[in-house]
Amino acid sequence: MKLAVVGLGLIGGSMALDLKARNFVSEVLGVDQNEVHTKDALKLGLVDRITTLEEACKEADLIILATPVNILSSLLPKVLDLIQPYGTVTDVGSTKAKITVSIKNHPKRKQFVPSHPMAGTEFSGPQAAHLGLFKDKATIICDSNDSGAEHLQKVIEMYQQLEMRVLYMNSKEHDLHAAYVSHLSHISSFVLANTVLDKEKNVNAIFDLASAGFESTVRLAKSSPDMWAPIFEQNHDHIVEALGAYIDHLKTFQQTLVAKDYTSTKALMTQSNEIKRVLEKIQNKNIKK
Amino acid sequence: MKLAVVGLGLIGGSMALDLKARNFVSEVLGVDQNEVHTKDALKLGLVDRITTLEEACKEADLIILATPVNILSSLLPKVLDLIQPYGTVTDVGSTKAKITVSIKNHPKRKQFVPSHPMAGTEFSGPQAAHLGLFKDKATIICDSNDSGAEHLQKVIEMYQQLEMRVLYMNSKEHDLHAAYVSHLSHISSFVLANTVLDKEKNVNAIFDLASAGFESTVRLAKSSPDMWAPIFEQNHDHIVEALGAYIDHLKTFQQTLVAKDYTSTKALMTQSNEIKRVLEKIQNKNIKK
Repeated sequence: MKLAVVGLGLIGGSMALDLKARNFVSEVLGVDQNEVHTKDALKLGLVDRITTLEEACKEADLIILATPVNILSSLLPKVLDLIQPYGTVTDVGSTKAKITVSIKNHPKRKQFVPSHPMAGTEFSGPQAAHLGLFKDKATIICDSNDSGAEHLQKVIEMYQQLEMRVLYMNSKEHDLHAAYVSHLSHISSFVLANTVLDKEKNVNAIFDLASAGFESTVRLAKSSPDMWAPIFEQNHDHIVEALGAYIDHLKTFQQTLVAKDYTSTKALMTQSNEIKRVLEKIQNKNIKK
Repeated sequence: MKLAVVGLGLIGGSMALDLKARNFVSEVLGVDQNEVHTKDALKLGLVDRITTLEEACKEADLIILATPVNILSSLLPKVLDLIQPYGTVTDVGSTKAKITVSIKNHPKRKQFVPSHPMAGTEFSGPQAAHLGLFKDKATIICDSNDSGAEHLQKVIEMYQQLEMRVLYMNSKEHDLHAAYVSHLSHISSFVLANTVLDKEKNVNAIFDLASAGFESTVRLAKSSPDMWAPIFEQNHDHIVEALGAYIDHLKTFQQTLVAKDYTSTKALMTQSNEIKRVLEKIQNKNIKK
């Protein structure tokens, strides 16, 4: 099987590397507008050849679109126009509703399988790509009834090769849950970094006082603005809702502090501790094969 | 040297374990009101003997107070009353101004060295204690001019044995910086957990969609309410200020989203990325011996 990856960043590059290493694909074609990225991807062995989008669509059995989500809206219809009748297209974007609506009536809709592998780090670009990024993580396939059976099967097999757990949701559900569970964490982290940097102008106090807890909480603030602004744009309504809910919860917490009502502060923290159950469940699922 | 540790939790237990393993102390006496903790501490070999507070004060050359900060206010004057003229007392509390003011005029003030080792995990109790918790981390000694030279020296040596970097600040500075760099991270994490748990009632969606990023951001939400409520109480004014600043920054971020002004959203995230420099510096400092 010949694979084409459009967008040679952390996710696209890691998928290329992993699927080649596992012999799921025999050749990987790479497409990227950024010449530094294409050179790095070749040098790092993420792809076998750099091609144009047109060549990739003509040759590939499977095409992974791994660009920022704002580029997908114009890229996906173009790719569907160009691909072979047997070609399958999947994306790895963090938002799903806009993109699926945009190609709802495309004659080749059945060749598209929207997906979202729940993996990543705060780093980006081909240099960040590595083997094993996806192992034991979850991937979401959206609106599976709208994809053709053979195309769906090809994408499921691809994720199974990467040792991911495949889950199914519709696009709207996906976007709502992703806003709370993934996108909001990024905002809380971006803004925490800004709050601390704004206060601690010379960063020495951060350097001196930061513990592992601070590092962990603020890690996502290193994430790429070019990747995240389009996600916030595409999942606008859900994210505004989730952020509003977060601010409301913070205000409730703040009120208990201002009122020196520490019994209530404690009760709120005891509620938060419930997250232990979820995190343990995640760790167990990641440990078990 | 004979060490007494009052409060046999994560920090007290880990210090006992480490200082004994490094032969900095010949015997460790343990004091804790919680009988489960004293039994566990003995069984786990964190301490050699369990004693009363009175016995510990009579026998010890060095006493570490590792209780929640609300207990310190009544405990510290009592310990100072009881200790030998050569005995040194240090605490490991996350807030400093209240406790140092409370014993400002104690005749044995010079025997007390306020300190705050910047280490810990989201776990608590003697079972969480382990070797190596402090290595290459920072510890803050506050108001060092108010401690006697020999007592200060003993505490510095103790932290050097644990391979910690010793830094100096006054109590007020400490509490202000700790509010932003440490205490606020905990609130952002506690409240993020509550926001997500409140929305995702059955936790299945969290389980399915949570990635490593979510885990990292929400990890501190597992922290002990019994430990943190007193910290928020003692550092009240700074924490209310820091939380207010965080909410204001979140509102600014929210405004850019509501206005769909993604250029400004991006600019805010680019500012957040500055935290990279700080985190890299922290990582370098932790790697180098």
